[in-house]
Amino acid sequence: MVDIEQANAKAVERMMEARPVLVGVAKAIEVIPGMHPNLLLHAGPPVTWDRMAGPVKGAVFGALIFEGKAKNAEEAEALVQAGKVEFAPCHHHDAVGPMAGVISPSMMVYIVENKTHGNRAYSGLNEGRGKVLRMGAYSPEVIAKMQWMNEVLGPVLDSAIKEGDGVDIRTLLAKALHMGDDGHNRLDAASLQYTNILAPNIVRVTKEKNTAAEIIRFLGDNALSILNPVMAGCKTMTLAGHNVEGSTIVTVMARNGTDFGIRVSGLGDQWFTGPAGHVKALYFPGFTDKDANPDIGDSTITETAGIGGFAMAAAPAIVTFISGTPKDAINTTLDMYEITFAEHKYFTIPQLDFRGTPTGIDIRKVVEKGMLPRVNTGVAHKDPGIGQVGAGVVTPPMNIFEDALVAFAEKYGF
Amino acid sequence: MVDIEQANAKAVERMMEARPVLVGVAKAIEVIPGMHPNLLLHAGPPVTWDRMAGPVKGAVFGALIFEGKAKNAEEAEALVQAGKVEFAPCHHHDAVGPMAGVISPSMMVYIVENKTHGNRAYSGLNEGRGKVLRMGAYSPEVIAKMQWMNEVLGPVLDSAIKEGDGVDIRTLLAKALHMGDDGHNRLDAASLQYTNILAPNIVRVTKEKNTAAEIIRFLGDNALSILNPVMAGCKTMTLAGHNVEGSTIVTVMARNGTDFGIRVSGLGDQWFTGPAGHVKALYFPGFTDKDANPDIGDSTITETAGIGGFAMAAAPAIVTFISGTPKDAINTTLDMYEITFAEHKYFTIPQLDFRGTPTGIDIRKVVEKGMLPRVNTGVAHKDPGIGQVGAGVVTPPMNIFEDALVAFAEKYGF
Repeated sequence: MVDIEQANAKAVERMMEARPVLVGVAKAIEVIPGMHPNLLLHAGPPVTWDRMAGPVKGAVFGALIFEGKAKNAEEAEALVQAGKVEFAPCHHHDAVGPMAGVISPSMMVYIVENKTHGNRAYSGLNEGRGKVLRMGAYSPEVIAKMQWMNEVLGPVLDSAIKEGDGVDIRTLLAKALHMGDDGHNRLDAASLQYTNILAPNIVRVTKEKNTAAEIIRFLGDNALSILNPVMAGCKTMTLAGHNVEGSTIVTVMARNGTDFGIRVSGLGDQWFTGPAGHVKALYFPGFTDKDANPDIGDSTITETAGIGGFAMAAAPAIVTFISGTPKDAINTTLDMYEITFAEHKYFTIPQLDFRGTPTGIDIRKVVEKGMLPRVNTGVAHKDPGIGQVGAGVVTPPMNIFEDALVAFAEKYGF
Repeated sequence: MVDIEQANAKAVERMMEARPVLVGVAKAIEVIPGMHPNLLLHAGPPVTWDRMAGPVKGAVFGALIFEGKAKNAEEAEALVQAGKVEFAPCHHHDAVGPMAGVISPSMMVYIVENKTHGNRAYSGLNEGRGKVLRMGAYSPEVIAKMQWMNEVLGPVLDSAIKEGDGVDIRTLLAKALHMGDDGHNRLDAASLQYTNILAPNIVRVTKEKNTAAEIIRFLGDNALSILNPVMAGCKTMTLAGHNVEGSTIVTVMARNGTDFGIRVSGLGDQWFTGPAGHVKALYFPGFTDKDANPDIGDSTITETAGIGGFAMAAAPAIVTFISGTPKDAINTTLDMYEITFAEHKYFTIPQLDFRGTPTGIDIRKVVEKGMLPRVNTGVAHKDPGIGQVGAGVVTPPMNIFEDALVAFAEKYGF
């Protein structure tokens, strides 16, 4: 009979000992395993076109326009309807994408390598806030920015990253949690660190100094510039803890805007899915919760790795963005200790006397205590073409943990 | 009869409404009022050579070597003994200096202008940690770095600052308090912000890209790079609240390593002084409190303006550097509300539900409650030529507040 405690200890130890380092930037088709010219990756568990959420459809339109395969949304939709486009979750290809999470073959992606165990993960370049592809916008200025990111930003980032020893994501996050970040929705300090680490290298590797200045400004002005490498870093950590025989630890939480899905370390690549939740949010001026798409994106990989909503106690100022009070932020983290296996060895929270963040969601505890993982997230408009409308907090549906526990009992014969 | 409450409200309102902006860098002799070729400024209240602390003497030796007036410490001391050097507090010239705080005529200084009331203040460029002039070190590598700062760094900073709209110190500090900084000893987030704001401009104004990269790296690697502009910013704020008839608010707290001195808004330029305290500190490896010089530096201008030790609740991670627990940090801030007049309008503490920092030390409350202002500070070696040995917390002597209150009663006839 399998020793679940021992299995979980191994899974979580591997997650915590993973040391993700950003090592470069390249075109998705050149580096993402299994990427091919007709494939588009998206956030969350698998989903068919007819059930696909508005912002994912918007990002698909944008990606097909960006790839030069369609001139507009109508042409893009016709391609999809004609069966010329294949879809797969980012997670099926060791990748992660915030919000819609669409990655197309020509897009530049970050490459993050776990130096402890050798595995890699991938994520696109962050566009900043506002009208952006990941929120389902696909207007000409969105596409133009994507092109600049691919042609100018990406190659410079690749050279700048390689000019140094790469960017140690675990160290950067550990510092950021001492600087008021949660590691998911609030990454102000981490993004500043990131810009600071790369800026001198960007200057050295860029021919035109105006281009160097523009790139440094673009990274420095975007409080989420480090989000995508952080997500890929968390993916390498949770991948390192995946496929441990007998472990009840969650290694993927992801949403496609329609469904919320999880994977469990001891249950291989099976998804357990249920309806994506409604985000309790602060809305930007002019929007209400009627505009909101349900919960969406792979960014819940941060909570899966022990940061984000789980580390909110470290980030009291985040409540100005997602609603609530600093006390709520503390309580969220305290609650999450109830459903996790360990306290993180490297991610600590000064406000809780440097206690490690709650790490390694145990499906047994979630079900026994009836307490769900807490996630903080951005909110996209439910229709394609619009963009972000707010940010807030949300939980997954309970059934996915129950279903996973049933599957676990069946597989391991409890 | 003067209305003290009204006077204090006016003094503190002026302090809070001051909006310091970093506007440039220039040689001290070109911009500091009253600077002349034989004058050296130092931290704290006035002090004569025979009572001058070791680190100040070390910085004086270094400054005279830097100015080309002496080849070594012996020649520098001979110049002083021969009466060829004049000394004055930085505060007598609207300047502030951390630790020894020595400013010589040729040194490049930051110029900070309070855009609300128009007054200016000045401070040197920050050298980073370790063997540095401000800690009393004066070896050839210390002098070489000073020369690089004067010849390379200073002119580039001046152009980079002027390339934009300057650097808004109040906005930067307000953000930093939401990112785990206290605004005095912990300025990690503020220094990152500072580097990020200037980096693109540095790239544009610098001819050689290796020089630009070197300068960005120098600023970005120094978690105190913004300390000196912050201090000058706080000086412009407290200056704006100075000389309000009938006010019992402290507008200067400063130490020269021998004496701790204060000035009070309603008592003009009179100093009230007592012995500088022993810092309760965490020491760097190899040093103990036997090596420590007493409390030193003008950096207490931050606490005078409502940040630093007074905002420690915002900076729980600072305890890894200065000793204590996060709870002590919270309690320090809570205590300081007992002896201050107001809660800051722009500097808020997320951990205390965004309460404004305790601002405007009232000498009446200090004496009535027997509670002293709390300061966190670096510790210099007591001998010239060595440098920093630790960091910790300290309080001023009580007599200076009592003496000030007696003087206030005499002047205003209570």
